[in-house]
Amino acid sequence: MSSDSFKVGLLGHGTVGGAFDELLAERGDAIQTSTGRRPELAGVLTRSQGTFDEILEGSDAIVELIGGIEPAREYILRALGAGRSVVTANKQLLSRHGDELFEAARSAGVQLRYEGSVAGVVPAIRAIRESLAGTHFDKIYGIVNGTTNYILTEMARTGESYESALARAQKLGYAEADPSEDVGGADAAAKMAILARLAFQASLSLDDVAYEGIEDIKSDDLDYAKEFGLVLKLLGIAERRDDGISVRVFPAFLYGGHPLAPVVGPFNAVTLEGPAITEVTLSGPGAGGPQTASAVLGDLVSVMSGSELELAAPRQLRHIPGDQTESAFYLHLEVADQSGVLAHVAKILGDNGASVKSVVQRGRGDDASLIMVIHPVSEGSFAKAVEQIAGLDAMRSAPRPIRVIEEEFVT
Amino acid sequence: MSSDSFKVGLLGHGTVGGAFDELLAERGDAIQTSTGRRPELAGVLTRSQGTFDEILEGSDAIVELIGGIEPAREYILRALGAGRSVVTANKQLLSRHGDELFEAARSAGVQLRYEGSVAGVVPAIRAIRESLAGTHFDKIYGIVNGTTNYILTEMARTGESYESALARAQKLGYAEADPSEDVGGADAAAKMAILARLAFQASLSLDDVAYEGIEDIKSDDLDYAKEFGLVLKLLGIAERRDDGISVRVFPAFLYGGHPLAPVVGPFNAVTLEGPAITEVTLSGPGAGGPQTASAVLGDLVSVMSGSELELAAPRQLRHIPGDQTESAFYLHLEVADQSGVLAHVAKILGDNGASVKSVVQRGRGDDASLIMVIHPVSEGSFAKAVEQIAGLDAMRSAPRPIRVIEEEFVT
Repeated sequence: MSSDSFKVGLLGHGTVGGAFDELLAERGDAIQTSTGRRPELAGVLTRSQGTFDEILEGSDAIVELIGGIEPAREYILRALGAGRSVVTANKQLLSRHGDELFEAARSAGVQLRYEGSVAGVVPAIRAIRESLAGTHFDKIYGIVNGTTNYILTEMARTGESYESALARAQKLGYAEADPSEDVGGADAAAKMAILARLAFQASLSLDDVAYEGIEDIKSDDLDYAKEFGLVLKLLGIAERRDDGISVRVFPAFLYGGHPLAPVVGPFNAVTLEGPAITEVTLSGPGAGGPQTASAVLGDLVSVMSGSELELAAPRQLRHIPGDQTESAFYLHLEVADQSGVLAHVAKILGDNGASVKSVVQRGRGDDASLIMVIHPVSEGSFAKAVEQIAGLDAMRSAPRPIRVIEEEFVT
Repeated sequence: MSSDSFKVGLLGHGTVGGAFDELLAERGDAIQTSTGRRPELAGVLTRSQGTFDEILEGSDAIVELIGGIEPAREYILRALGAGRSVVTANKQLLSRHGDELFEAARSAGVQLRYEGSVAGVVPAIRAIRESLAGTHFDKIYGIVNGTTNYILTEMARTGESYESALARAQKLGYAEADPSEDVGGADAAAKMAILARLAFQASLSLDDVAYEGIEDIKSDDLDYAKEFGLVLKLLGIAERRDDGISVRVFPAFLYGGHPLAPVVGPFNAVTLEGPAITEVTLSGPGAGGPQTASAVLGDLVSVMSGSELELAAPRQLRHIPGDQTESAFYLHLEVADQSGVLAHVAKILGDNGASVKSVVQRGRGDDASLIMVIHPVSEGSFAKAVEQIAGLDAMRSAPRPIRVIEEEFVT
């Protein structure tokens, strides 16, 4: 074991960068024991300090924690091109420019590691990457955005509105001042693109992910659904099928026995499915400076220990459009209490191949609601049915469909 | 990338060995892509076939799936001594002879990997090992025996007796004909010894683990506890404290919001805690031929890819006796309905420093039961109190104490 030092160029010194800096000092001895080298900062690049060229020159590896697309993309490409391995937690960049960045790493024969980009400290990337050779994955799904999971948990717990839960999330630091990336689903979509690219070894970018957010969720839908034993989550699902791959993010009701149903508050969880492993779920805090810094440091240790499995070049796989998928649905209709409205609705559903599993009527007169659960049906056909139902005179507001995950679980 | 083959000597061809053999053939191409070499069986040792010497001679690495202590121990030591890395799923052997085996691997400069020995396909060993340099672990706990979790889940679900649930577990293949290793807690204790040795880098064997099983659990305790919102699990807990380490296995009640409460049936889960990671939980099927074979194959791929972090030599840490720990307790007393019995019991508890959190009386006359929850108290003091309570005239049967995990969780 040599006692050389290993020089780390740190780009960015915000919440995660600062925590990484501290953790690196704290774990220096342990890292030296396990890798034979002591990691030391070669320099730190911030808006007011350092130049990238100098830091690159003096470093053995680069840790990128600036975030955003530029200049992070340029720095990473230049570092890889100069033969430096790179560790990043930048989900925006990886989900948009993955092909370019991973190809740059491959052709330079260096590593590009990114555990911190998905699900904080939960070692989802590592579990997939190191199982790839031995395991075929069919499906990766999970709760990969802590902000929305916190908001949905609070709405269900207190009965408050989306707006009120969001305001509290912002106050507690679980949501940003501009929360649109999180609540609109784009953040979860970026993470699912990263997970699916790795698990399916496919060329894939954020543009290939269909996503919806939680902004339109009403608290009375959470209440009604509770009676059916359902809880709402913003779910990411990446599936491999015979005709291609499908990667989507949408709010979905889960039955209480579903392994992800108990994942509450700002926690994240990722479930991996494949024939040999059946299913494995990893869960933990989804974000936080020290947690993400710990994931980044784990990647740095892997870079220092020189371990790397070769990944095959990504394949071009067909991306299956959402309307070619089947889903079960919850459907909330605010209707005028006219006799015959249920019959009308049922006929439209039936004509479009959708069959009703259960229906409950709430309220009377002009306050009546029909709350239905629909058996799995082609999403395209169901969308047509909802459009026709929306046109009925008896509707007092737009129909509110929410997908339901129907899977049964061992208990 | 060369196209050499990598010769694997397989010891044992039972459920796991057979599944490994199949999976190895199925994943040959993928493994060649990621490691540059194609794994091929150098030979298979069974009771009726092959000799160890020949197989060792022709192999690059050995996969031991015989189980038990001898001849597995001898074969592994000889393989390591001959410079071969070894992959095993043998928890009995590792938990009893860990110091000897890991020292043999260290001094030969080869790998000894054992993901399959704990929690089936759940990558607990890998998550701990690869986080060690970057993370300090305070506590590892979990449900690491699928047989007992299945039995407890069924007792709670159906209200049936331990004997009846065990019989069904045996019929379904979740319990062996002789279930004593599982139901008595020794199997879980062996796995906790393996996890704690790695996480705390401590010299530790099965003898250092205090364990209790589930044979004496009555179904009415599960019923009563439900009213307090408690579910029963056979829990393994390894903790690092200022005064040493404590590794124990016992049946324990958890509150419904506990992350392990929803782990049901034959599933396993392991939670890792540390300051930087907060907590991470990994869960999945605890056993099964293909699942364990998949964990073994993952280890083989790691051996082939040559990645290995150095582990420090294990430290001698003090093992804290169980009675020096504090626990909360559920306590069920079958009493004759004499006035004053509750006062007697409360006095004994108070004299021994135990304070009552809640108490419910059920039934009347000779069928009365007192069901209590006791605030955290030194286990030694509580054991004295229980002994004194057992001596009261009013007792109709031995007191039934069960530990309660009190931790509160974010929701």
